[in-house]
Amino acid sequence: MALTTISSWKSFGGNLSVYDHVSPLLGCPMRFAVYTPPQAADGPVPVLWYLSGLTCSWANVMEKSGLQRAAAKYGVMVIAPDTSPRGEGVADDDAYDLGQGAGFYLTATELPWSTHYRMDQYITDELPALVGEHVPGADMGRQGIFGHSMGGHGAIMLHLKHPDRYRTCSAFSPITSPARVPWGQKAFEAYLGPVSIAWEQYDSTELVKERQSKATILVDTGTADSFLERELKPEIFIDACERSGQRLEYRMREGYGHDYYFIATFMDDHIEHHALALMD
Amino acid sequence: MALTTISSWKSFGGNLSVYDHVSPLLGCPMRFAVYTPPQAADGPVPVLWYLSGLTCSWANVMEKSGLQRAAAKYGVMVIAPDTSPRGEGVADDDAYDLGQGAGFYLTATELPWSTHYRMDQYITDELPALVGEHVPGADMGRQGIFGHSMGGHGAIMLHLKHPDRYRTCSAFSPITSPARVPWGQKAFEAYLGPVSIAWEQYDSTELVKERQSKATILVDTGTADSFLERELKPEIFIDACERSGQRLEYRMREGYGHDYYFIATFMDDHIEHHALALMD
Repeated sequence: MALTTISSWKSFGGNLSVYDHVSPLLGCPMRFAVYTPPQAADGPVPVLWYLSGLTCSWANVMEKSGLQRAAAKYGVMVIAPDTSPRGEGVADDDAYDLGQGAGFYLTATELPWSTHYRMDQYITDELPALVGEHVPGADMGRQGIFGHSMGGHGAIMLHLKHPDRYRTCSAFSPITSPARVPWGQKAFEAYLGPVSIAWEQYDSTELVKERQSKATILVDTGTADSFLERELKPEIFIDACERSGQRLEYRMREGYGHDYYFIATFMDDHIEHHALALMD
Repeated sequence: MALTTISSWKSFGGNLSVYDHVSPLLGCPMRFAVYTPPQAADGPVPVLWYLSGLTCSWANVMEKSGLQRAAAKYGVMVIAPDTSPRGEGVADDDAYDLGQGAGFYLTATELPWSTHYRMDQYITDELPALVGEHVPGADMGRQGIFGHSMGGHGAIMLHLKHPDRYRTCSAFSPITSPARVPWGQKAFEAYLGPVSIAWEQYDSTELVKERQSKATILVDTGTADSFLERELKPEIFIDACERSGQRLEYRMREGYGHDYYFIATFMDDHIEHHALALMD
């Protein structure tokens, strides 16, 4: 399992590299990007995992969020994986919200998806092992996780399941109750089958009832987000966190949408949130 | 001549809007984007024109440069026009460096280009008139201009021709001697015909011999820019500025390329360069 460097650019004194590798777990080639800040030249730096939303690849956040500025300021590495297995041999669907680009960070149990769709294991096991071995400067003892929309779901869900691994967590416009909204229901039914206990294992609102992390989860969501009422439903997760004692800072941002202009506006806050906690 | 709003996003407390309009000058519909900083709510703000490079539209710089942060900090409006006339009735070429997306900010005199290609007049006359009339918050008495690559050529060339209009000027990786490099020679021959006095009117190196501005032109170019030796040739323009007395701060940036990761890294410097001078 080695990495092939596809592209490399200097950015804010650090380096953005895009890598290809073969994934035995997913059964296909995969691509991801790593922003390494200049501080990594002097020793290992904290690692932030950014999980993207529906249809996205590594490129959206690396091209459009401006994260490199804050990552270089605070000295953190940011890794952006893809959002699903991909390629000709991988099951797909014509819809933008199912199949390739829509892996929902879970292990599918239903055919045809169960052959390749294991994005939670890819994010938590296979890819970190590869990064730890082959990407210089990554301190795998200090990891945080964040994401957008479907990737916000992935970040919060994986943080709650692995709080010692991902010590910090934040999200932009996350899907926090996938089992109760159309995007999540469609994906869970396809990947996991009809409603069952399996759904709860990937639903942050259900998870937080049983297990709370020591971290404060930071969330920003725009009031003009066109998916707010139908897919995001912040109040359900906010209520569950209050009841369970999970610390949560959920900020509604007046007039902002679901887009990368919104994410870019608040990216510095999120990088700082992780960096300050991971510097300890 | 009215504007149709195509998209609008909140960004760094301000607003990014994309407009369509019919251009009588170019004989086709045109699209451009305006970032309006929050300070415009309190009164007119300086206007910066950003001219993009080959193949680009308004979107590249607005999505990838992170300019909104600095524009919001300093309170300047940034306008990103398209790089050529476009559409089915507009002459084109299969090459990326001629025709649509490659207008070179000049008035073509050769058929078939002369029917639509008048990007210098569009940038200096038609579009500013439209903005001044229809975009709230633009102080047309305080304008600056900057750009990238072909757009860096456009910015410096138009600044030298209209120093009272564009009081400030900067560029990333500009083509400053188009008459002496392959990209410029190909475009000038197609649009203007064989080498003639007409070429000199669009060549910054020739222009600066005859007319110098009072401004200091700021330029950043990467040492790892793959077009450096063949298309950019900084030394020719640097030498011409030294001989003519034109103030120029030309900075070579170690290890950076021709891409928007490079531009994003130094965007704040450029916005600040314009903003401080235009605040007078």
